[in-house]
Parts: sequence; structure tokens; C-alpha cells
Amino acid sequence: MERIKAAVLGSTGLVGQHFVRMLERHPWCEIALLTASERSAGRRYGDAVSWEAGGALPLEARELEIAETSVEACLASRVRVAFSALPAEVADGIETQLRDAGVFVFSNASAHRMDAGVPIVIPEINPDHLALACAQRNGKRGFIAANSNCSTAGLALVLAALTRFGIKSVTVSTYQAVSGAGRRGLPAMSILGSAVPFIPGEEEKIEQETRRILGRLDGGTIVDRELDIAASACRIPVREGHLESVVVELESPVTPADVAKALADYRALPQELELPSAPRFPIVVRVEPDRPQPALDILAGEPGSAAGMAVSVGRLRRKGKGVGLFLLVNNLVRGAAGTCVLSFELALKKGYLK
Amino acid sequence: MERIKAAVLGSTGLVGQHFVRMLERHPWCEIALLTASERSAGRRYGDAVSWEAGGALPLEARELEIAETSVEACLASRVRVAFSALPAEVADGIETQLRDAGVFVFSNASAHRMDAGVPIVIPEINPDHLALACAQRNGKRGFIAANSNCSTAGLALVLAALTRFGIKSVTVSTYQAVSGAGRRGLPAMSILGSAVPFIPGEEEKIEQETRRILGRLDGGTIVDRELDIAASACRIPVREGHLESVVVELESPVTPADVAKALADYRALPQELELPSAPRFPIVVRVEPDRPQPALDILAGEPGSAAGMAVSVGRLRRKGKGVGLFLLVNNLVRGAAGTCVLSFELALKKGYLK
Amino acid sequence: MERIKAAVLGSTGLVGQHFVRMLERHPWCEIALLTASERSAGRRYGDAVSWEAGGALPLEARELEIAETSVEACLASRVRVAFSALPAEVADGIETQLRDAGVFVFSNASAHRMDAGVPIVIPEINPDHLALACAQRNGKRGFIAANSNCSTAGLALVLAALTRFGIKSVTVSTYQAVSGAGRRGLPAMSILGSAVPFIPGEEEKIEQETRRILGRLDGGTIVDRELDIAASACRIPVREGHLESVVVELESPVTPADVAKALADYRALPQELELPSAPRFPIVVRVEPDRPQPALDILAGEPGSAAGMAVSVGRLRRKGKGVGLFLLVNNLVRGAAGTCVLSFELALKKGYLK
Amino acid sequence: MERIKAAVLGSTGLVGQHFVRMLERHPWCEIALLTASERSAGRRYGDAVSWEAGGALPLEARELEIAETSVEACLASRVRVAFSALPAEVADGIETQLRDAGVFVFSNASAHRMDAGVPIVIPEINPDHLALACAQRNGKRGFIAANSNCSTAGLALVLAALTRFGIKSVTVSTYQAVSGAGRRGLPAMSILGSAVPFIPGEEEKIEQETRRILGRLDGGTIVDRELDIAASACRIPVREGHLESVVVELESPVTPADVAKALADYRALPQELELPSAPRFPIVVRVEPDRPQPALDILAGEPGSAAGMAVSVGRLRRKGKGVGLFLLVNNLVRGAAGTCVLSFELALKKGYLK
Repeated sequence: MERIKAAVLGSTGLVGQHFVRMLERHPWCEIALLTASERSAGRRYGDAVSWEAGGALPLEARELEIAETSVEACLASRVRVAFSALPAEVADGIETQLRDAGVFVFSNASAHRMDAGVPIVIPEINPDHLALACAQRNGKRGFIAANSNCSTAGLALVLAALTRFGIKSVTVSTYQAVSGAGRRGLPAMSILGSAVPFIPGEEEKIEQETRRILGRLDGGTIVDRELDIAASACRIPVREGHLESVVVELESPVTPADVAKALADYRALPQELELPSAPRFPIVVRVEPDRPQPALDILAGEPGSAAGMAVSVGRLRRKGKGVGLFLLVNNLVRGAAGTCVLSFELALKKGYLK
Repeated sequence: MERIKAAVLGSTGLVGQHFVRMLERHPWCEIALLTASERSAGRRYGDAVSWEAGGALPLEARELEIAETSVEACLASRVRVAFSALPAEVADGIETQLRDAGVFVFSNASAHRMDAGVPIVIPEINPDHLALACAQRNGKRGFIAANSNCSTAGLALVLAALTRFGIKSVTVSTYQAVSGAGRRGLPAMSILGSAVPFIPGEEEKIEQETRRILGRLDGGTIVDRELDIAASACRIPVREGHLESVVVELESPVTPADVAKALADYRALPQELELPSAPRFPIVVRVEPDRPQPALDILAGEPGSAAGMAVSVGRLRRKGKGVGLFLLVNNLVRGAAGTCVLSFELALKKGYLK
Repeated sequence: MERIKAAVLGSTGLVGQHFVRMLERHPWCEIALLTASERSAGRRYGDAVSWEAGGALPLEARELEIAETSVEACLASRVRVAFSALPAEVADGIETQLRDAGVFVFSNASAHRMDAGVPIVIPEINPDHLALACAQRNGKRGFIAANSNCSTAGLALVLAALTRFGIKSVTVSTYQAVSGAGRRGLPAMSILGSAVPFIPGEEEKIEQETRRILGRLDGGTIVDRELDIAASACRIPVREGHLESVVVELESPVTPADVAKALADYRALPQELELPSAPRFPIVVRVEPDRPQPALDILAGEPGSAAGMAVSVGRLRRKGKGVGLFLLVNNLVRGAAGTCVLSFELALKKGYLK
Repeated sequence: MERIKAAVLGSTGLVGQHFVRMLERHPWCEIALLTASERSAGRRYGDAVSWEAGGALPLEARELEIAETSVEACLASRVRVAFSALPAEVADGIETQLRDAGVFVFSNASAHRMDAGVPIVIPEINPDHLALACAQRNGKRGFIAANSNCSTAGLALVLAALTRFGIKSVTVSTYQAVSGAGRRGLPAMSILGSAVPFIPGEEEKIEQETRRILGRLDGGTIVDRELDIAASACRIPVREGHLESVVVELESPVTPADVAKALADYRALPQELELPSAPRFPIVVRVEPDRPQPALDILAGEPGSAAGMAVSVGRLRRKGKGVGLFLLVNNLVRGAAGTCVLSFELALKKGYLK
């Protein structure tokens, strides 16, 4: 099978690097174009990037020349798919133009997440929402499919595994890593030896996006799930991995052990289809008393392209009127690049990218 | 007025140092004895201690010779009051013996906190509970009065200011500093660049102690307040200052602004009595979008002996069915040494130490 | 004595805050003007600043309205002295204009440090260099006196105490705190859990400024001391306090104990004159095996306005052909605001500010 | 070829884990035995270990039952080779007994490093020193071969590449990661937000071991290289990767560019023999202005078993009378487990393990 030509937009940032890492030697896709801002354009990727995505800098990408981000560069490279790690303000216009030019855009930017016609896809949870994307151009080539906010990705997966118990309410407090703000997003003096109980827009994103992802597609519209969810967001001095303290009240009278089993057993379409970046188990339940931890668990999932794609859960216990747990999500992989890649794999497998 | 002779038990540890700092030049009390483990006994305090309690090492304490912790040393020094920063397992026996020998023990140890006859005192909240301590020896000299767990101290103060609205439920997730585990309590590799979602016994302490502190003394027994409280505890890589993410549901239909006003206006008996270590306002409400923070707010309160005695609160907002906020408590001052000292001041003022 | 009216230029930044802290209730000086960039102008200082200079925000300063930094604002406020914490690019023009308008400028900016007519003053070492400043306007009012780079301040004090042994060579590697880059100077992802072996211009500053400060004023010109000095600069994830690893080769055959004695005994003109911000001993020699440390020693000096003004030295030992030691300098106090204030005090005492 | 049976002694610690990682699927060796202290004995390795060595926990090792460390366990498992990550005090007796029982011990412990008959081997530098080990039992099976201290490993490799220029003197200051002290070696309060300028024995090890590794084997004895080397050691709050600031004076009049070329071109016997864990280039020269950094460069080397085996060098510049540079060594791989494994590979290839 010929590999599909893909662009990584914003390829030198943290999320962009994870796109490059996951697409290197991808069985279905090859990197035809790497873009970045004007500052890096024209440079060899291996020279321009401060590689922080783990392992060695991929050999194929290393030699590519970076283009300045533009629709023209994508068209000139004849890419059919674009993975966007652009900042929201840049993403807005370019992603729309690419879509209109027939490109399938899998975006990590928040720019279009709340557009009525753009689904927020987590392939394990709402693979059917991709149909909404396909409707954007009335069956013609091109769409924008968004992924969720990084904190939402972990929470939504855990809640998806528990919906059958009936979810009455969710209270979540986050312990978010600095990489979630991008490489230059947070000054060191703001966070070193401290914690910052405010991340602009984050709490609203967690609350709204979770309801939307868990919602249902009804006659071309997504109907949000009704869900009483209260999110508090805080940044802590950790590089990678968002930890979340969750208390969930359930309709059914279940024990923490029931919840643990439901989480550990959770498998969905990506697992069934054996998509290349799907972890065998999307949720890893830890039995140790003090896990998950950012320093130890951010690579959960299988080795290779699924590393970082599993959410780790631990400390399951009765808490208040519900069940308490801590979860950890790799904010750059499952919370960003990885879910986009998984959505691409799903879309290709389902025949949506023709 | 002659100053009362006091001992600081476990004076070289982090909490012990804060006792020394707060008692130096205290108007009502003088340090007559400093104790520590065998390893430091016989050394000059200024030589044996790694001073970390802020400012310069107090001049008076600097020259004192450390005694090994024992009942005999206390009696030999004719101390009437003992401030205990002993580890729980050491505190148990010694505190009881001291009490039985007629010493008034103000303890930061958890050893006796759940004894039916030992009150957990936060002078702003339950000054009347001191009467329970006085009953321990049927009016004879000597008692043990405990202070709360460090996280509890901050939470209980905030809840105390809100009881008039009726508290339906409280959900709290903590972001606790490393100093809470003592100077050698946590290996660096366990927390550097990570977060540990487990602190043995902490969640239970927060839940039980809060109900007890907010309870009422009825016929010589404390009747816990009925309170639906769910606590999740996590350690983060910060040296000092416990941050807490709180969602509180109230009976009365109040706005975040009402809550802010109730918190900012909160004053109680220690303020009325102008106790030396009482902050003018026990709760400081921050209006900035991103406060409180450990690096910026641990010294809230007035300068001098009340620095670190005020709890900082911020990010007041509607959250779920209730009101959300973040609070910060100085775990070594308001959460440990400071509240003990304030309880001593209250007890003296009320004539309980005769 | 009437207190001299002073301005703090760039008063909301980290160094500016330390100026405010040290000048609050200063016996010889009162803050008549606080300036900042356009963003903060017009706001109450207590509202605009994120106070990080220790203790509570000074009461006098709290109520002052911030002016935008300009020569006009200084003249309107009739300040005779200006303490500059401006960024170098802003400082250049404004400091010159202020000087020409008759204001005595004590500057922490590097803008004029290498001007032939501007001395870099550390009052213990080269108080006579102030005469160079006085010559700038031929005896008319106004001058610019610079202080050194933050790392240089600590190193130069230690070397000054050792010059009598004859210094053959100095090799120094720094462990610099993040605050040295200003509040927004370094992204968190660049330093959290890492170390950055490059600080633009720092190594050159250490080498050149040290030679200059230790040089002699000869006929209106400073003749640098000939000194073989090799500096390597590195940033580490610490908030405050620059640690430096130093190996110094001496002409005289001295032991580490001789060096320790020379350092501990070192006193100079500011001590003799008992200037308000002069520490009683400019160098504190630690005998513990593992000191100095940023977390423990940044407040060395006496309490009050001299806290942070003493350099801590430890681990004195034979090393290679010379003597090895580690030193710690409070980069915001002795390495910035504090030395400027001390220079002001010296200049006033010597009658240079008339 | 049949794989040699090997034991990993002390397999649950940080260095032990890297042994397990590197030996999993090793072409020449299979793990026949994993040992640990009594506390973990009898447990499945996958249950007992907090895996921190990167990637997923190796599948083969996961299922092995841990034995308590003992000579008997090794003999019962018929291991021919033992990799020791034991603490020095435990290693002393057991390693000697294993050697005497005919086992080839590759040890990361410092216990025997200074024994006259035990070589400290870095295969690129002194492969011939292995002959000293072979002489321990007069040609009978079994020996102890040590590797160097973690900081030494990086420094010695760089110096080895520069010996042809003639080395007059070396001054080095280290920035050492916390993992070098083991998982429980350092309390968090000692290092979080601080730096500790003392690591017991470290400076002496760096100085002595470097002279010995660069020495020559002469008639059955190692003659240390005469080398004027001054080492200062400091711990910083970083998890992995020792950074070192080095100034080296050379006999030949070479430029930094000459030094860069010599370092980048350096290859030795392990590269020639293409040993499985040999990096293609033992030294990676970085041209960026601010590298190497612990967060970015600890995996230098090729992917797979050589990741972390290359030393990164940057900031080459004239400094004092010599050349300055910063180097970074992965303290757990090249500085510990990795060099032991490479020594094993060399010994096997040279026919020493028969």
C-alpha cells in the first residue's frame, strides 16, 4: 500500500515533535512536509529542532527542509492529510483553507473545537462523530477533525468506561505539567517551586468538551451529554504528564473494585481494528498505593507508537458519595498528537479519506 | 509579667524551628529548654540546627545547649508549658507523662489527636474545646491540647467562615509541600519532577479532624459535625505551603462574592483578644486571577509572629452546584507550630494555665 | 536629618522590589517615586506588584501610585537619587538624561558598566572608585554609579579578601538561579528538571568586571587588575541565590585555614562607617561539610536591611595547585539592589551627594 | 551462539534496572537471575520494581522471581557472568566470593575499584586493562572488573580523546543529578529548590580514577597517568544526567575547533568491533550555543542499547589558558550499567570469558 502524504504543521514545537515521532515509519502515512514559523523556515529539521519527544531524532525527518506554514506549501507538496500543531490564532484561517482545498486536517488546535460542524474525536469513545466531519464538504474531499484539550482526553476516556454505571456527577482537580503551555508558554519564575491555580480557559474546556465528546450525534448535530462536571485546573512544576484527582458519583451502587474492573477491561473500536497507534488497553489500572505518577507512568501503553497512549489510573477508593481515583494522561501524546494520529488511522480504515 | 518557662520538644526539625522562631522574644513565654534526639543532645542549638525557618537564627536560642528529649529534662528545667514537635511514635508516651507531671502540652503530633479527651484546637474556630483539655486532670495542672493536621488547618478555617451558609458537602484535593513529610521524610527521587497521589493517613485525617474541629462540645464530649467531606491528597515538588482545591456546596443560595465577603470579614476570638500570634485577618482573599501560590503567599498574615498564620484564598467562582476556591496554608506555621502557639496564648489569656 | 527623595525605576520587577524593601523606612532616604512600564503606570503599587522580595509588602510603598518611567516623572517628584532596576536597553538613555539633569543614579543595569567614566562600585572593595563618578559632571550634581553583575559581586568580594596573598589565577563555574534572568526571562520548559550551560554575556562580564572592580583608579582612569580568570556560567533550577565553584591559585603558600581566616576576618569601609545596609561581616565562612546552599544561606548577613548582603563561603580545601571553595551570593540583594543601596549610603556619608 | 547466563545483582535499584533494560534481548547474554534485598525476594520482578529505566518494563524480566542476593543463588542458577549494582558495603564480600567461585563479575560498586588487581575499565579507553582482571585467578575462570564512578566516566572519555594534545591540567566542576545517590539516597528537602556543594568521596574518586583509567598497564601493575586534576562536586535538582564544566590546558597550541574535531572523530576499539552496546560515536559534539542539557541530551548515542552511551559535549571555547567545555554523561547508563555491559561485551569478544 502506498503511504499517504502528510504534513505536520508547527512541527518544531512540543506537540509537533510528537507528530513527527509517531509518523516516522508509520505504515499508512509518510511525512511529506514539515512546517514551522518564519524563523525556522529553510533550515534542516534536524538543525532547527530542540528534540524533546524521546529517543533519537527520527532519521527521515532529520534531513527534511522546513517550510513556512502556508496553504501553498501544503498544496505544493501534494499532501492529503495535515496534522496541525499550530497555535490557535494561526490555526484558525489556515486549517479552514486547507479543508476547503480538499485536505483532511487532524488538528490539535482549539480554534475549531467548538464549531458546530467539527467533531472532537477520541476514537475509543466517539468514532461515529467523524461522520460529522465528513459532512463538512458534502462528501467532497477535506475536513477538519479536532482532538480534545489535553486534560479532557484523560478524563473522557475514564468516564467513557464508566458510562454504563450512570454518571451523576464528576469533580476533578488537575495537576498539569508545564509542557501543556508549550515550550515558551510559562516563565520559570512563575512555576519553579510553586503551583499556579489558574490556566486560562482550561476549566471551561474540560467541562464543555467532555460533555460534547460523550454526547451523541443526532441528525447531523452533536447533542451534549448532560453531565454535572466541576473542573479546577492547576499547574505544577512537572515537565510532562497531567495528573487528575477525580471523584465520580455513579447511579449504580458499584464498588471501587467494580470500577477498577470496568476501567481495566475497557476496549473499543481502535483496539478491535488494531489501529497502529492504539494501545492494547486504553486504560491501565495500577494497584500500587501511590500511582500513577508523572515521572513513572507517562509512557503507559505498549512500546512503539502506542507508548503514551494509555491513561493510567490508580488509588481507586470510596470517596464521599462516590468513587475517588487519580488518573494520569500524557498531555503531549494521548492529550495531543497521539489522539490526532489515532483519529487519522480510524478515518483511513473506515474509508473516510478517499 | 514574668514569662512562662517553655520547652520545645523536637526543636531541630522543621516544625521545631518554627516554634523556636515564634517563641523568641515572645511577650508571655521564654524558651527554657530545647530538646532533640540523642544525636544532637549536648550540642549548642546554633551548631546543631540547619536553620530553615526564615530570617536569622534567633539569638537567644542560638546559645542554648540541646537536651535529649525526656520528661526529666523538662522537669529539671521547671517548664510549665511544652510545645511538642515530636514524631508521633515518640510523642505518645512522653506527652502523657508530661501531662501527668503537671505540664501543659501543646502538641503538633498526631499521637493523641483522636483521644476522646484531647481537643484539636484552632483558636479561631473552637476555643471552647480547650475546656475538654482542662478536664483531663480534673482541674489539676497539666493537659494535652492537640493541633490539627496541616492540611486540615487551612480547610477548617475556611469552612468555619462559611458555616452560617450551611455546608452541604465539601470536595477537596490537596497539593502538599514536601516539608509536610519532615526534613528526611521523602526521598528526592520520589518527588523531583513528579507528583505523588498518596500521603498515608492524610485523607482520613482531613475528613475526621475537620468534622471534629467544627463539632460542638456537649457534656464533656465532642460531637462531630455531620459533614459530607471527600478529601484527596497529593504531594507536589514544592518546599512549603499546601495548596488545596475546594468545591463547597452550601445550603443558602449565595454567590462567590458573598463567600468572598464572608471569608474576608471572618474574625474571631484570637483577633478580639489581640493574641500576639493572631493575624489581624485569619483569611486573606486574593483578587488576582492566579493566586494563591506557594511561592508568593506562605507568609500571609501580619509581619512578625503572625506571618504565615493567615490562610490565603482565591479563584472564588461558581463550580458545579457550589462554589469553587483554592486556598493556601503555611503547613509549618498555621498548619503546625503557629496554631499551637496561638492555642497557648489563648489558654494563658483565658486563665487555663494556672 | 531630612530624608533624601529617591526614585526606584523599574520598581515592580524582582530587583525593583528589593530596592523598595531596602528603602522602606531607610534612615537616610525616602521613596518619592516608583516607576514601571506603561502597563503598570497609574496603578497602586500594592495592586500592580507580585511581591516576592520577602516579608510583607512595605506599607509606605503599598499606597504609592506608579508612574511610567521617564525623566519628567523624576524631575516632577524632585528626586535627588534614582535607583535603577531598568532593563539595559531602557536604562541607557534615561540614566544618562537623569545624570545630566543632576540626579545621582545608582544603577543595576549593565548599560553603562563598561563606560570609561562609570565606576562599578562594591563599597567594601573600591569605595575610592566613586570619585570617578563624581568627575562625570565636573563637580556638578549628578552621576551614574553602576553595580556589578550578580555573579561578579560574590566572586569579587571573596577575591578582595584574598588579594594580600597574591592571586595567580581563578577558575570559577557558576550555578545561577533563575531569578537572575528576571521574572519572565527564562521559560519554564528550558530549566525545569534541567540545567542550561549558557547565559549570554555572563562569562565575559564576570571576567571583565572582576578585573575592573579590583583595579586601581589612576589619574582619572581605572587600570584593570591583571588577573587570569576563567569563568563558566550555568543556570540551574533554583529560584534565588547564585552558587559558585571557585579554585584560586595564590602566590603565597597558604593553607585553606589561612584562607578561611582571611575571609572571616574581612571587614572594610562600610563596616567601619556602620552604613545601614552593611553586614557586620561581608563574608560568612561556613564550617559544615555541605554549605553554602541556596535554600539555606541566601539571607546571610544581619537581620533587617543587611539580610542577603553577606556572601557565604564553604568547603575550603586544597584543590589542584590552589584552594577550592564554594560561595553563595544573593543575586537580587548583594548581587543587585543591595550593593546599589550600599553605594548610595557610602556616597552620602562621604558627602558626594550634595 | 548460545547466550551466556547472567545475573543482575541489586536488580530493582536504578542501576539494576538499566542492567535489565540493556540485557533484555541482548544477543550474547540472557538474564538467568535477578537478585535484590530480602524485602523484594520471592516477588515477581514486574511486581517488585518501580520501573524508571525508560520504555516499558521488559517482558522477559517481568515474570522472573527475584532471589535474595547471595552467592548460592548465583551458583544455583549457573550464571557465568554477574552484573553488580550492589551497594558498596554489600558488594565487597559477595563479589569476591563470586569471583573465587569462577564467576566473571562486572561491577558498578566502588568496593573494589581501588584494589591493585582490579581494573577500572572503560572499553574505549583502556581495553588492555582487562588483562589485569584476567590475572586475578591466574588464568582460571572468574574475575572482578570495575567500572568508574559516574562523573569520571564522562570526563575520562573526553580526556582520552585529547591525550594526543598533551594534557597539562584539568579543572572540573560537576552538576550532578539526584539519581546518582540512588533512589533513597537524598531527602527531597535537601535538594528541592537548592544545590548541595558536597558529595562524599566524589571529588577524590574523579581525581584518582581518571588518573588510573588513563594510566598504563606495566608488568601487571597500573601506573597512573600524571595529571594535574582538580574536581569540585555539587548536586543539583535534576533527576538524570551529570553535567560537568571543564577547563583543560593542553601542551599543544590547539584551537577550540581542533578540540571539537578531535572529540567528534574519536572512535576506539568498541566501535571497531561493533560491540552491541557501543555507540557509533562515543562523543557527540553539539554546536548549539546552549547544549548539552540534562533534559535534552541524556539519550545521546544510537537508538536501542547504545542510547545513553555517548557523552555530549558543547560550548567549546577558549577559557583561561586552555579550552573550556561542558559535557553531559548519562550517569545511570554510560556512568554505570552501560559501561559494565560494554566491558562484558569486550571481554567476551576478546575471549576472556571462557
